[in-house]
Formats: sequence, C-alpha cells, structure tokens
Amino acid sequence: MCRWLAYSGSPVLLSRALYSPANSLVDQSLHSKLGAEATNGDGFGIGWYDDGPRPGVFRSIEPAWNDQNLRELSEHVSSGHFFVHLRAAIGSAVQQTNCHPFRHGRWLFMHNGYVDGLPKVRRDLALAVDESLYPEIAGQADTELLFYLALTFGLEDDPVDAIARTIGLVEAVGHRKGIAYPFQGTIATTDGVRTWAFRYSSEGKSRSLFYTGHIPTLRRLYPEREILFEVSDDARLVVSEPIGDLAGAWNEVPESSYGVVGNGEDRLSPFKVKAPSVAVPTGA
Amino acid sequence: MCRWLAYSGSPVLLSRALYSPANSLVDQSLHSKLGAEATNGDGFGIGWYDDGPRPGVFRSIEPAWNDQNLRELSEHVSSGHFFVHLRAAIGSAVQQTNCHPFRHGRWLFMHNGYVDGLPKVRRDLALAVDESLYPEIAGQADTELLFYLALTFGLEDDPVDAIARTIGLVEAVGHRKGIAYPFQGTIATTDGVRTWAFRYSSEGKSRSLFYTGHIPTLRRLYPEREILFEVSDDARLVVSEPIGDLAGAWNEVPESSYGVVGNGEDRLSPFKVKAPSVAVPTGA
Amino acid sequence: MCRWLAYSGSPVLLSRALYSPANSLVDQSLHSKLGAEATNGDGFGIGWYDDGPRPGVFRSIEPAWNDQNLRELSEHVSSGHFFVHLRAAIGSAVQQTNCHPFRHGRWLFMHNGYVDGLPKVRRDLALAVDESLYPEIAGQADTELLFYLALTFGLEDDPVDAIARTIGLVEAVGHRKGIAYPFQGTIATTDGVRTWAFRYSSEGKSRSLFYTGHIPTLRRLYPEREILFEVSDDARLVVSEPIGDLAGAWNEVPESSYGVVGNGEDRLSPFKVKAPSVAVPTGA
Amino acid sequence: MCRWLAYSGSPVLLSRALYSPANSLVDQSLHSKLGAEATNGDGFGIGWYDDGPRPGVFRSIEPAWNDQNLRELSEHVSSGHFFVHLRAAIGSAVQQTNCHPFRHGRWLFMHNGYVDGLPKVRRDLALAVDESLYPEIAGQADTELLFYLALTFGLEDDPVDAIARTIGLVEAVGHRKGIAYPFQGTIATTDGVRTWAFRYSSEGKSRSLFYTGHIPTLRRLYPEREILFEVSDDARLVVSEPIGDLAGAWNEVPESSYGVVGNGEDRLSPFKVKAPSVAVPTGA
Repeated sequence: MCRWLAYSGSPVLLSRALYSPANSLVDQSLHSKLGAEATNGDGFGIGWYDDGPRPGVFRSIEPAWNDQNLRELSEHVSSGHFFVHLRAAIGSAVQQTNCHPFRHGRWLFMHNGYVDGLPKVRRDLALAVDESLYPEIAGQADTELLFYLALTFGLEDDPVDAIARTIGLVEAVGHRKGIAYPFQGTIATTDGVRTWAFRYSSEGKSRSLFYTGHIPTLRRLYPEREILFEVSDDARLVVSEPIGDLAGAWNEVPESSYGVVGNGEDRLSPFKVKAPSVAVPTGA
Repeated sequence: MCRWLAYSGSPVLLSRALYSPANSLVDQSLHSKLGAEATNGDGFGIGWYDDGPRPGVFRSIEPAWNDQNLRELSEHVSSGHFFVHLRAAIGSAVQQTNCHPFRHGRWLFMHNGYVDGLPKVRRDLALAVDESLYPEIAGQADTELLFYLALTFGLEDDPVDAIARTIGLVEAVGHRKGIAYPFQGTIATTDGVRTWAFRYSSEGKSRSLFYTGHIPTLRRLYPEREILFEVSDDARLVVSEPIGDLAGAWNEVPESSYGVVGNGEDRLSPFKVKAPSVAVPTGA
Repeated sequence: MCRWLAYSGSPVLLSRALYSPANSLVDQSLHSKLGAEATNGDGFGIGWYDDGPRPGVFRSIEPAWNDQNLRELSEHVSSGHFFVHLRAAIGSAVQQTNCHPFRHGRWLFMHNGYVDGLPKVRRDLALAVDESLYPEIAGQADTELLFYLALTFGLEDDPVDAIARTIGLVEAVGHRKGIAYPFQGTIATTDGVRTWAFRYSSEGKSRSLFYTGHIPTLRRLYPEREILFEVSDDARLVVSEPIGDLAGAWNEVPESSYGVVGNGEDRLSPFKVKAPSVAVPTGA
Repeated sequence: MCRWLAYSGSPVLLSRALYSPANSLVDQSLHSKLGAEATNGDGFGIGWYDDGPRPGVFRSIEPAWNDQNLRELSEHVSSGHFFVHLRAAIGSAVQQTNCHPFRHGRWLFMHNGYVDGLPKVRRDLALAVDESLYPEIAGQADTELLFYLALTFGLEDDPVDAIARTIGLVEAVGHRKGIAYPFQGTIATTDGVRTWAFRYSSEGKSRSLFYTGHIPTLRRLYPEREILFEVSDDARLVVSEPIGDLAGAWNEVPESSYGVVGNGEDRLSPFKVKAPSVAVPTGA
C-alpha cells in the first residue's frame, strides 16, 4: 500500500510536511500502521506548484528515507500546493516512470490502491485512452493508466465526473473479465488551485483517507505546535493515513465520498461511480 | 544510435568481449565512430545462456563504463551465447525496462535503430500485439514493441518470417500515418542455439552490421591474438560496429540481408519485408 | 541492524539461499524479528567464489527486494562459498562503496553491528591502517575500516588474531575517547576455503549469530526439504538471524565466540580480544 | 576533465544556464572541445543559495543529460548565486559523495583537475585535515580532501590564503613522494555572497577558465540575446569552458590567477601558492 499527502494552503517549506512532525511521513514510510504493505520503500515522488507554467515533479526509485536529494529539495522549496507520494510497488517495476504523482499540463494525479486483475484488463483500458494522449503513457503503473483515462473523460473540465467515469469503466471491464472487485483506493488530483480527493472501492471496503480539521480550532487544541501558526486558516492536509501524534487533528473521509479544498471551496460529498453509457470495448 | 554485440561459439568469459580488446565495446561506448549518436551512455544490458531454463539478463541505467557490477559479472560469467547492448536513448526514459536485450522464455531480442514517428504509430502497433503477450510489455521502448509483435507473428517458430511481418506492419502503419521511412535498424534475436541478425531500413540506408570471418583464417592472419585460439572454429561475433583494430576480421552484412549462425548453420541471405495480408488495424 | 548469511559447502545456486526458503533472506529484509532496525533496505551485496582468481562482488544501493539484477544473477550463479549482506545504514551514505562484503585479494569481509562513536575515533583508526592499504579505502563505512585494520594486523595469515587485535584497538581508542562500549557485532570473513564467524561486543550483549546443524541429522528431521539433499554433508550456513521455519535447524553461537567451517574444519571456540601492546596512536 | 559553471548576479532560473543556450552546459557534457576527457557523464551536482540558512545541494550519479530531476529542478529554482558541476571521474567511484559541489556551512567548493599521485599522498593529506572536520569527509574524491584542507587553513576567513596554503601542502607532500606536478586545475568557492575562482597548476599549464565580460557591453554586442537583458549589470558567469556561441562574451583567466566577483567586488589578481611553513607531516 502506498502512502500519500496533499497540502493546500499558504506556502510552507516541504520539509515541514516531510520531516518535521514527530511522526513524519518519511519516518512513517518505514512502518505503516494502517497499510496493507508495511514498508513504502519502492520509490517516491513529489509535485509542487509555484509561479511557473506547470508544477515541478521530482521522482526517485530510492526509498524516501535514503534520498539525500529529497531532503535538500524539501529544505529549499516552498509551495502552497503540493503532493507527496511514497510507493509500495505491487508487481510493476521500480522506475521513475511508475512513480506518482503523474503530471499532464497543470494537473497532478496520485493514488493509493490498485486495479485488480491488471494484466487481464490493461489492454482494454489502454484502448479507451484518447489517441492523442496515448503516446504520453511512459510507464506501466495502473495509476498512470487511470490518470490518462480520467483525462480522456474530461478531468480538466469536471474532475468528479471524469473520475466517476474512469472507475466506472474499470469496473465494467473488470466485471466482464470475471474480476469481483476491480477498483480499490484513494485518488488525489489537483490543478494547483483546487484539490479533489476520492475514497472508493468496488468492494465498499476502501483504503483509509483523512483530512485535517479547521486550523483555528487546531490552534486552540494544540497551541504548542508552531506549524499550526505558520499556515493560513484555510490550510488543509489530506492524507492516506494520519501523520504525527495529534489525535484530534484528523477527520476520516467516509466510504464512497470525495472532498474538494482550495480556492474557497471546502466540502465533502458522496461519490458515485458512472457506468459506461456505451458498450465496453472488447479489445478484439 | 545504440551499439550491440552477439556472440556464438564455445564458452568464453564475458569480460573477453567487453573489456579485453584494445578497442573494447565498453571503451567504444564513449565514442562511436560509425554511429549517429556518439555516446552510448543511456544504460546497457547483457543476456547470456548457461544450463538454466532461461537466459540471464542484467540491465542497468548507468553508463556501461561506470558500472562496477558489469565488470564483476563479466569476470565470472562464461557463456557460449550472449548478447551485449549499449544504449543511446532517443526520447524514451532511461530505465531498466527500456534496456535491451528483451527476453521472453528462452528468446532474447535487441535492436539498433528506431521506429520513426513512434508517438503516431505506437497505439496501432500495441493493438496488434497478441492479447496474451500484451501484459508482458513493461517499458516504452520501440524495440520492446517490435519484439512482442515478432512474438505475435511467430518468432519462436520462424524468426525470419516473423521479423519480415513485424517490419511489414511497422511500414504499413507508418505509411498510413504519413511517415516516409518507418523502420531503421539492425536486429538480433536468439533462442540460445542459433542467432539471427537482420539489417534493413525502409529508406535502404541501414545502420551498419558486421560479422567476424572464419576463425581458422583469422588465426593465420593474427597469430598473436590469444582470444582467437581460445574460441571454437565456429565462433562468430556479430556487431553493430567493428570492435578492436583487426581490420581484416570484419565482413559487412549487405543491405536488406540477414545472417544465421549456430547449431551448424552459418549463412547470409537476402531479407524481404512482408506487407500485412489483411487491412492494417485503424485503432478506431 | 544489518543481516547476513555465509554459505560453505557443495556448490548451490545463490537463489536457493536468497529466495527459495519459505521465509527467505530477501523476504526477511523487509521485516527482521531479531534486529534492532526492522527494515534492511539500504543496499546489499553478495560475494561468491568460483574458479577465478578472486571472488566476484555484486553490490547495489537498491533494497534487495527490488533488485531485478540480484534475482537474475542468483538464478545463474552457483557457488560453494558465498556471502550475502543486507544493509540497514546507521548514518553513512547509501552507496556501493559502503555496501558489504568488502574484498581484498581473495578475502571477503562483512559485519552486522557498529563502531560506537565513529566520528570521534575514525581518524585514529584510519591512522592505524597500513600505509600501503590506506588508498584502497573507498567508502566511509565502519566495517570497511575494520577490514583494513584486520588486514593490517595480519588477517590473511591468522584471522582470529587479526580480528582480536582489530577489536582490541577499537576498544582502546574508544575508551580513550570516553565511549563505554566501542564495539558491537558479528563479523564473517573468508578466503574462499574456510569461513570464520565472530560474535562479540564490548558490552557482552552481542547481536545474534546462528549456524545450521549437521546436514545428515537435518535430513532425518526434515526429509521433505529438498535443499538438504542437494548440499554436501559438510555444508554450513552461518546467519545473523535464523532463516525459514526449521526450528530445529539452528544453533546459536555463544557470546564471545567464533566458529570456523570449511576445508575439513568445523569448530567453535571462545573469542578473546587483544589489547594493543603499544600505546594507542593519538592522532596528534 | 570535469566541467563547471559559477553564476553570480540577479536571480535567474537555473534552466537558463543549464539548458537554454544554443550550446548549453548539459549538451556540452556530451562533447567537450577543450577538455582532456571528452564526455562528462559520471554524475553531476548543483549548489544554490536562497533565503535559507545554507545552500541547497543536488547531486546525482546519472549523466546530467539523462537526469529528469535536474531538468525539473532547474525549471523551478531561481538563484542569484549557484554552482553547476559535471563530472568526468578519474579513478574514484561514481557516487553522490564524490560529486561536486561540496558543502560546509554556507560554503560551496568545486574543482576541475586532479591531485596527481593521489594514492601516494592521500593519507598524509587526510592527516593534515583538522580533527574536528575529519569526520565530515564522506567520499574519496581528491576535491573533497582539498576542500577540507582549505577549511582547515581558514577558507571561511581568507579564501585566497587558504587555497594558497592548501595547494602549497599538496605540492610539498607530492614532491616528497616524487610527483613532478602535484596539482592541476581550477577551483571555485563561494559563501553565497562572493565567489572566488582560481586557475593554477604545478606545471604552469593549467586547465582553462573563462568569465563573461561586462553585461552592458554584451547587450550592445548581442541585442538579440534575451538572457542578457534578464540579468543584472553586475552578473558574471565563470566557467571551465565557454558555453554557447557568443565568441565575444568570454575572457580567459590568465595562468596562476584568481578572480573575485559579488558584493561589489569584481577583480582579477595573480595567485601565488604558499609552501607550508613547518615540516610536512610524514604520516609515520
């Protein structure tokens, strides 16, 4: 099981999220309490926004805890919008092109979970990717495929609809191939202004997803925590698993739900998958 | 332009081919005289046969000249059949899954050249790969795609026919997409008993391909070269570019030709591409 | 805490030791039950003997469980004498030159443990290395330093005496710098004929060390285990922690002891550190 | 021969120096016209200053032309003071701890050249490093040793004196060991405010060193070059070899000279090595 973090708020040094907490994301990459796989040592990636035309992406095949460059970078890069992902590979190679987050234009995308029976469905799913996007696929990760399907289905215009249709297609193709529960996981995607986070699984037993409570409230609860006074009132962390030891800081995203933060939005809604309206391609 | 070597003969230490010659393959990876790209520093791979059920494959993203493990391995592995490939990437990522040689069962496959206009044709070519083979594609190299097409077209039964049909499909799809010269390069493939080497390009100006002359003759020409007395009479090196300084050792494979060595075979024949008998898939 | 294995016996494929057991060394690199650090993901190394003039060494900075080349190599290399080491770094960089085993001529050396207060004693220890050996030191690992001290003290002639004097020097220098327990760990060294394994710590609470029982006895206890019938009667595995689920297979090396196996020898003796006979160098 | 660049001026994106010029530093890493070694593919490093307490350092063992992370980073990091170094290793391992620039506190240090006969002199030079600095040495590069010697000799207070004494020691120790020309190369060091660049060799045939002319003058010469209008009037590039095709932009630093730029300083002076005032340590 992978582990991820999405930050949205006033700019902070990346090192604050990666290394500072008593129980930081990088330390936690060695031991995951809630995850299916206990060690997240199969590469990592970060994506961050600044004034440039597209977000930066830094990916490595080393375990995050060993990567000296990640440590350096995180001490020198500040961002008001960033993604961090620590990978625990399930089958696919440990190579940069399989590391999250994935990027297209101004969009980033990451995932914790899997497409079940991937070898059986990969070809049909790849076929459904728009022909103009297909050549951008550089690796073999199921997440990259999900991203290009979502882009095909209009992620840049309506992320919730696009993710609903993407998972709908995964389920339709999977069921046709005899897979009981084709999709599992949590997804985060952002355009650098707003971040959407989804929790869903075909089985209804989805991997965990949490978000931080209201910052002014947290400041009253934990007045000794400097970081809470550094960030803006509207700052939010969305994480695959709670980080640190602030028990009262975390709210769980319910099953089959999604949240939006950023640009004044801050809400949680039910998430419903959309089955393909036309026949699923057969790949024949 | 990549650089490759295929050896067939009595078992020799890999280091003899990689490091020993005055002008060795690894030294030459720094400066290629005949190649289009002068430095082959974008990873490398070796594949070798022993008594095991399938050949070993060692691939690295480091330049061969830096790889201490390659040096170690080559001093300890002997083989009567091996492939060596030094990569100069054109566009695709430097990752192990893009490094040659590629393997399927007992077969190895490598290539120096390219599929022109790859982004335009990749999807249609991927579609033509047999559904059972499709999930094995792990990288994004054009060569890996060529290999799985060849396997789809019966490489394991009739390599010459399979390669002819593979390049025929590449040309048909490429021409339909407006690409003047879709295929360029030399290909080597082996089952560990015989090795086939092809030289062909759509334009008729193919990258170079050479093979060593008859060993007993070479021994008379170069009696001071120990290596010639270590290998069997039927030993052959097939290379993308001549190695070392034995001017009389190398014969050029003519344009649009292929050669077979091993298991008593040792011949050179004309090579003719086979156009697809049915309509090319449209990917729509 | 690192994890290591030393095999001595009739030649076997390395994969038998690394991947085959129900609870193999590579799987165990993810979760160590007895170790101080639970994950051994900071690189690894193997060293093996064949007919060549010196052992081969393959080292990588990737976690062993990710390394495809280790998997390939281990399926194609057979040896009657090999070392495997999985590293959990304590402070020093994750780089090949810090990975065990270390090699000098025909000798290999590896270690699980540490020199306490290394920054305080490194310079004085480095000073004690023979001037002709000093330039061979390539990394910054305490183990490499121990190896070159042992070579300085005559490892190639009398390994037990050399290790005793090496640890004696470490303790003398450490105590002078105010370090309570300067040495901790288990050491294995071999010339490819015999293997010596040491268990010692200044505190008398040494990291664990085990060896397999008599093979004919194990065959009677576990007749269903094929591997026991593949190896010679005199085969021995020495390991930092028991591998697999054969509870009756492992004997613990007692505190302050060393064992020798190979070339007809097979014994366990008490180990006693030797204090430097002359004044410890002061580094001034 | 390595290749390096030091920038001092108003903040610019690193990508402007690394990738933008017609004939950029990264492209030139493939083919060096003036260098002794033609390919600089053995790792690289960058160091840059921002508002943080110490400069950032990013180092990699991949060839710079392959490193996707360097490309990303350079599109997102702006700095008014940065170092770039492309390595062509001579003997020592390709590992991050051998990559330039080296850092201590707020200081960076890099070098193109070598200490001749390093194996013979390394121990005596290491002995001369201050005991408090010794434990920071992490690799085996001659340049790292030069840096710690310079720090020992007061680099942070008087860089010119410290470098003069460092090279003086290298020459004294080298000569004692029978080395004719112990030092060769160019050195750059900076505290993030001023940059010092040295050109010197024992033989008096030093590797090349160039600096850009006065920016307002260059703007008149090359009005079509946007980059000249982006940087401040006092901007300077100091480089091991000219980059790009602006023939009129480069001035050569004379033999046995050093230059200082930054913080209002902008001058070129003769450089004279200082022999050790006391007897050279004998290492015995």
